[in-house]
This record gives sequence, structure tokens and C-alpha cells, in this order.
Amino acid sequence: MNAEQPPIRIGIVGYGNLGRGVEAAIAKNPDLQLMGVYTRRDPGALQTLLAGTPVHAMEQLDSHHGQLDVLILCGGSKDDLPRQSPALAARFNLVDSFDTHARIPEHFAAVDAAAQAGQTTALISAGWDPGMFSLNRVMGEALLPDGATYTFWGKGLSQGHSDAIRRVPGVAGGVQYTLPVPAAVDAVRGGTRPTLSTREKHTRECFVVLEAGASAEAVRQTIVEMPHYFDEYDTTVHFIDAATLQREHGAMPHGGFVIRSGNTSAGNTQVIEYGLQLGSNPEFTASVLVAYARAVHRLHLAGQHGAKTVFDVPPGLLSAKSPAQLRAELL
Amino acid sequence: MNAEQPPIRIGIVGYGNLGRGVEAAIAKNPDLQLMGVYTRRDPGALQTLLAGTPVHAMEQLDSHHGQLDVLILCGGSKDDLPRQSPALAARFNLVDSFDTHARIPEHFAAVDAAAQAGQTTALISAGWDPGMFSLNRVMGEALLPDGATYTFWGKGLSQGHSDAIRRVPGVAGGVQYTLPVPAAVDAVRGGTRPTLSTREKHTRECFVVLEAGASAEAVRQTIVEMPHYFDEYDTTVHFIDAATLQREHGAMPHGGFVIRSGNTSAGNTQVIEYGLQLGSNPEFTASVLVAYARAVHRLHLAGQHGAKTVFDVPPGLLSAKSPAQLRAELL
Repeated sequence: MNAEQPPIRIGIVGYGNLGRGVEAAIAKNPDLQLMGVYTRRDPGALQTLLAGTPVHAMEQLDSHHGQLDVLILCGGSKDDLPRQSPALAARFNLVDSFDTHARIPEHFAAVDAAAQAGQTTALISAGWDPGMFSLNRVMGEALLPDGATYTFWGKGLSQGHSDAIRRVPGVAGGVQYTLPVPAAVDAVRGGTRPTLSTREKHTRECFVVLEAGASAEAVRQTIVEMPHYFDEYDTTVHFIDAATLQREHGAMPHGGFVIRSGNTSAGNTQVIEYGLQLGSNPEFTASVLVAYARAVHRLHLAGQHGAKTVFDVPPGLLSAKSPAQLRAELL
Repeated sequence: MNAEQPPIRIGIVGYGNLGRGVEAAIAKNPDLQLMGVYTRRDPGALQTLLAGTPVHAMEQLDSHHGQLDVLILCGGSKDDLPRQSPALAARFNLVDSFDTHARIPEHFAAVDAAAQAGQTTALISAGWDPGMFSLNRVMGEALLPDGATYTFWGKGLSQGHSDAIRRVPGVAGGVQYTLPVPAAVDAVRGGTRPTLSTREKHTRECFVVLEAGASAEAVRQTIVEMPHYFDEYDTTVHFIDAATLQREHGAMPHGGFVIRSGNTSAGNTQVIEYGLQLGSNPEFTASVLVAYARAVHRLHLAGQHGAKTVFDVPPGLLSAKSPAQLRAELL
């Protein structure tokens, strides 16, 4: 951190698990200053994680324009970000965690048009996947062009799959964990480039609380046969009571690996592995967003406008340290 | 790869294990074209890995200036690169693998002065450590500022330590492997941020061929007590015959891990791990140099002159794919 630099002023837009994680992450970065949380809820009723975090109504954002260097958007990819990111990029630098992989090109195009017009810098799809895992997929392929890339997720709580089981008739509550299959991970680490089906890579494990009178077998059947979500996987369903669900399944762990194996010559196999073991998925995602907010501010000061992704950011810009300090201490 | 782009024309300066690795790596990247190897040896006597690789005397480099987009310097960090990199950066874009960590700031300064004056782009200290491991040290620290970073090396052949044991009186030949201590790696992966001494992190294992009449015990004693190289480690010395050395210890495997563990809140520990298992250390280092040569060419076309390190390079520039393709396929 360069002592003479003023702090980078951050606004949090939206305040769920991710927003709370960003609030916690900013507190660990002394070169960043949290200017406030912007919410569509009643600002007076919002309980923030840290005492003293200012809370504002979303409508006040515009009038705070001159006091904010970068916004961190903490809404969802389905309903919030497709509208918010292009709208806000017209006037603010921002970072979002848009994670609907198939729709990234259109989201990028919409944000880029707004950011180019407004001469702002807007980084989309930060986090760990998309985000850190994407970086490792690109770098693995670039370093070992004659090779294969494998992404494994878990063990981790999947929000989308947990939501899906909670919509099954007869289910009062539940969570779903995604697990990599150890034999598949071992085969990939061995550098043999196996061909793996969806079923061979991951298993799914559900912990379900039944509604009174519901049939366990009928619920199990509905879950394991659910198209897209479960039918291509081996799924185990455990039935537990509400107290156990609350006591043992309240955390949001996640993680996984990106493994690239390849050959640099006929006789020599090389394996690159990037792995995450996350005690809290939203808090880690938030930490990534915060580091990229620092980079976005610097790119903006350097005159680099438009939409960006993690592929466009020199890694040194993520650090609070100066380039000379990074070369001396960490290269 | 953009089909309409002409290939990026590469020259290899110096032709040992690393130079041969670069030759092999270029053959796996169709957007790059190897223009020739430049050597201080007799060009006519040099046996290249691939038939058809042009070999030139070092003195011809200057006259080939207009035919070369990027030079990849494959000399050593002790005697070659401190002279060659600044001298060549005055006229050529280049990548080197300068790996004397303590002297990186002065090497950067010398190369930067030459490259700024010559309006070239010169990336120093590429490879895996410095290089990929450095990137992961910077990013780990940036993402988890409340944490600790650990670098483990091995299992791998250490060239410097192998050279040291071969200088011991009574030693006819030998190799040294560096090994991470499994208990230390496990403790770090657990996220507990242990304090580890040099001895607790790595062990050293030597395979030595004795000269006729030499005392095994005297040689063992000299090795394990050698200052800086071995005295701070637990070292095992095995005595083998020359045929076994040649048969079983001719490969150059290496690798290791960079692990960052940290807390995003009091209750939540996060662990990031980057690991390499390298069948051939020089071939992997070469593959990194080649990917960064592509990036250097693009930075130069974008008008970014001066010395650079891996911290300054947007990861997308390493890939032959276009930014839009990377976003659609790999983000």
C-alpha cells in the first residue's frame, strides 16, 4: 500500500450473503474504504455485520456519484445483474459476479456498451467460478497446449440444487452437496487424460427434512430423477430432522480443483492443479470481488474503459503493494 | 488463434536443456514460428531436437533484427542473463528466466533502462519459480490478506544442490532431490498457519557414486554438513553405482506447491493451493517462456515498452485464442 494514496472508496449494491462478505473483506484491506451499503429494503431496518457501516436507499446512489470510486454489485445473476450492471456501468466503475456461464457474452456486450459510452471501467464475472477457476483454465491451456483441462467442484453446498430439492412436494427443508469422485480426481492427477462422463466426475448428496405425512420414497424418487439437476448423477438422499439440518448444515463450504495435464514431449507429462477449500463460499467470492475492485480503480485511472474480465487484469493490480515491492518480495 | 494473423517469429538464444525445451514447445503452438537457434558454439556442429531448425552463430543475431518478433533467452542466471538481457533488450523484444530471486530488482532496472531506451518490451523472470509460483503468491495474498503463504518445492531434482555434491572430493557423480515434508504440507493445508523452520519444511536426498577408494562416511559427512546447501536440512545420502545413476536418475522431475491459507471472518478459513507435478523441469519452464513470448509480442504491439514481469501481463494475452473466444469458452 502506498501511504500517500487516498483510500479507494467502495459502495456495496445489494446486501445478502455476498454483500455481507464484501463488508467483511473490505475491513481486511486498509487501502479500501466502505462508503456504504445501497439497498432496496428499508435502510433503517437493515442490520449490518459491522457497527458503523452506513446504509442508504438505492435511490441515493446517483447523488453519491462523486464519493464512490467503485461499486461492488452483490445481486443475483438471474434477475438483478442483467439489469443493474449495464445501468450502473453508464455512470460508475463496478465489479459484478455474474455467473451464468452461457450468457456471459451477451452480459459482456451490454456492460461494455454502457461502460464505453460512460467512460467507466466495469469488470464482470469475478469470483472463483467464473473467476479464479477461469484464469487457471486459460493459463493451463496456454502453458500446456497439448493437454486436457478438468474442473471438479466440491465438496460444497450447491445453492441451485438445494433450491431445487426444496421445491419438491413433501420437502420441508434441505441442502445438497456436490462431491468430486475421488477415483476420477486421482486418474486426472495421474496425467492420463481420461474421458469422464458427468456421472463419473461428481456425485450428489442431499439432506432432506420431510413435511409431516410425506412419503420418503416418493421424495427420494422425485429428487434422483429430476432432469438436468440430478438425473445424470448418482445421488444419495438422507432424511434428517429440522434440528439436525439447522445444526449441521448451516455453513456454506465449497471448493474444487482445476487440473490441466499435458505433454511437453512424448516422454514428459506435466500436471498443473489449482484447488480451493472454502469454509465460506460467499465470503471467498466477496474477497475476490474486493481485490478486483482495487484493480478496476487502477485500470480506470490508467484510462482503460469498457467491460473487462479477469483475463484482462494484470495480476499485480490486485495487490495493495507497489510493483517494485512485489518484485522484491514475491517474484 | 486468429487465422488472419501472421505467425509470431521467435529466436532462441542459447541451446542447453532450456533451449531444447523451447524448441519443443514452439512446435506445439501453431501461431508461433521458430526462426532459429543462436549459439556461441559452432553452428554446424549443433544437433537440434527437430530436423530443420535453423542454427545461426550468435554474431548473426543483429543482422536478423527485422525477422524476429521476440527472443527467448535460454542462458543461465549466473553468467549469461545479467549481461545478455540488458544488451539484447536495447534492440529486441525478449523473455528471460532470470531466477536469482535476491537480484531481481537490479536485473529489472538494467533491463528496463535498455528496453525503455530502445522502445522494446522485455519480460524477465518467467518460468515457474519465479513465474507461476510468484503469481500465486501475489494473488493468494491479495485475495486473503489476513493469512499466510507457504511455498514447498519437490519432489524434484535440484541442479544447484546436485552440482554442490559433485564438487565434494571422492564423488564421481550424483544427484540431489528436494522433498517437501508431508506432515508440514498437511498442517498448512489444514489452514492452521503453522510456523515452520527450514528443517521442518523440506528434506534432501542424495544419490552418490563414489570415486574408487573414497570413504563413503567421509563423503556423507561432508555433504550433510555443507553450509547453506545441507546443514539446515535433514539429508539422506545413498551410495549407488554409475550404471544405476544413469539408469534411474537421468530425468529432471520437479514441482511443488504454493499454499495460501487465511480467514475471511473469525469462523471461516479458506485455503488456496497451486501445485505443479513436472515430468521435466526444463520443458515446463520452456513452455512458460513460450506463452509469455506471445504476450510480449502483443504488449509490444500495444505500445507497452520497458521491462515487465508476470505481474504485469493480463492472463488472456498468454492464450492464442481471442478475448471473445476466451470469454465464451473458458470464463
